[in-house]
Amino acid sequence: MRSEARIGVVGATGAVGKVTLGLLAGRGYEHVRAFASARSAGSSVAYGPRSLVVEEATPEALEAADADVFLFSVGTSASRELVPAAVSGGAVAIDKSSAYRLADGVPLVVPEVNGDRAVEHDGIVANPNCCTIPLTCALDPLREAAGLARVRVATYQSMSGAGAESMERLRAQSHEELDLLMEWDFDGEEFDEEEKIRLETQKILELPELPVSANCVRVPVLVGHAETVWVETEARLAPEHARELLAASPAVDLEEFPSPAKAVARGDRVLVGRVRRDPTAENGLVLFLACDNLNKGAALNAIQIAELLLERRALAAA
Amino acid sequence: MRSEARIGVVGATGAVGKVTLGLLAGRGYEHVRAFASARSAGSSVAYGPRSLVVEEATPEALEAADADVFLFSVGTSASRELVPAAVSGGAVAIDKSSAYRLADGVPLVVPEVNGDRAVEHDGIVANPNCCTIPLTCALDPLREAAGLARVRVATYQSMSGAGAESMERLRAQSHEELDLLMEWDFDGEEFDEEEKIRLETQKILELPELPVSANCVRVPVLVGHAETVWVETEARLAPEHARELLAASPAVDLEEFPSPAKAVARGDRVLVGRVRRDPTAENGLVLFLACDNLNKGAALNAIQIAELLLERRALAAA
Repeated sequence: MRSEARIGVVGATGAVGKVTLGLLAGRGYEHVRAFASARSAGSSVAYGPRSLVVEEATPEALEAADADVFLFSVGTSASRELVPAAVSGGAVAIDKSSAYRLADGVPLVVPEVNGDRAVEHDGIVANPNCCTIPLTCALDPLREAAGLARVRVATYQSMSGAGAESMERLRAQSHEELDLLMEWDFDGEEFDEEEKIRLETQKILELPELPVSANCVRVPVLVGHAETVWVETEARLAPEHARELLAASPAVDLEEFPSPAKAVARGDRVLVGRVRRDPTAENGLVLFLACDNLNKGAALNAIQIAELLLERRALAAA
Repeated sequence: MRSEARIGVVGATGAVGKVTLGLLAGRGYEHVRAFASARSAGSSVAYGPRSLVVEEATPEALEAADADVFLFSVGTSASRELVPAAVSGGAVAIDKSSAYRLADGVPLVVPEVNGDRAVEHDGIVANPNCCTIPLTCALDPLREAAGLARVRVATYQSMSGAGAESMERLRAQSHEELDLLMEWDFDGEEFDEEEKIRLETQKILELPELPVSANCVRVPVLVGHAETVWVETEARLAPEHARELLAASPAVDLEEFPSPAKAVARGDRVLVGRVRRDPTAENGLVLFLACDNLNKGAALNAIQIAELLLERRALAAA
């Protein structure tokens, strides 16, 4: 039975980790353990009506944990240290960091888009960037119907995407100080966040040559990411047809004016709206989307991957 | 002498009106009168170290005011009622509303872009939308060097663009409630704000066929608008060349990471940065800009139009 699965949540005290525990508790999982860094070890975290004592996430502890699945929501360097230990202990690691997303042999999965790829894992399945997940959910139905020629995306990303400390920093600001932020790492002209959206979208959609241009901005909103997307398709696609395709997609809800707050209120869906013709391109469409970056954009997507593997009894490496 | 000009500020108690008075006082104008609706008449507004008693803006009062120039920052319906009275009293009306922007015979002016058009007025000069002003300031130097083929713009607009009441509404919100807003009027699929950006950009740049696609979003920032711009030029333009052209432009300051707060700190300039190649288009560039929407995006642009007319002794209708 699904709820019998033994699940380890690593990074359990972070913003995504807490949402992960809430979702797992709501889905009835009974054998869940919480792991975090030494700093949080010994504290307790809510798990539905119960609480879990946080264990220290060391390679030894994860290797010995006898779990079926680990859900990792930690930084890239922590993932690099801990994920191999979890895998060598016999578990599947579903990793939210960018450490393994582009690695050969590691499926990068949005279940509604390329779920079949998940079973091809060799112990690790990567969970995409929180902007890439909703973007590919919106692009996939259009790709299937008309092919994709090029994608431009301007992001409006919430502070929670930068972790719980950034949320506290926003809460501490006066309204006069609210500003747009561009505190991303960069190498050359592109932010690493923009590169992730480009390369991950290409990998998930299996269109390695798809031209993607992203511009990433963080906005003073606590939770919920939004994106303006210009997409050019190979074949002409009327906006009303695109809306029908999106409405029929399992990950998407059509919404007249998507916003982060609306996305958080319905955390498991990608809200897509304002689908209209791009007057600048022959086969162009413009749309606006919003998604709860902690939920479908992170924790839920990882749980959906885990459940897909559990259902297909695909926990052993391929 | 310029500072001898008799100037009436209509809408003096609003967000743009207050900035207008501050700028006029700083520039040494001595004969300034403040007008507003009956609700504010009799109150006083700061004018440098002095204060001005607010007069009621009726058609009769404006017609009899014997002013050289009126700077209007009122709603469209108030402008429709009051601007003709100001003009029939012999003044030039510089109007910030959208009432006259697209009218034949009314110049729509960004002084650094198409200042020469201002003198062709017939009593009214229109001040463009607060997103159009910085957009055309950034596009103009690229147009001159390489021609423009198409423009896509995603806006991040501050609450002050919706007036002082919207700023108060934002200030009253808890941080948990901060959200992106799309409270624009719309007719069909396009918001009126998006239509303004499209049609005004075409008029100012005198490129009536230029394809422009705008997507407008209001962000929880008090003052300062930002825009992500994808621009395709007719001829290829290297990003470093585009940066040189922008740096040499009178309205633009290059800034590595423009933001609303930085734009407000330097209110008279359009900050442009992140100029890079758009990997999805042969001759495409991406850039990010920010501008103080109350200052260069509104009040200052109007004052610059007035000063241009004063310098060229072009206050009489052409």
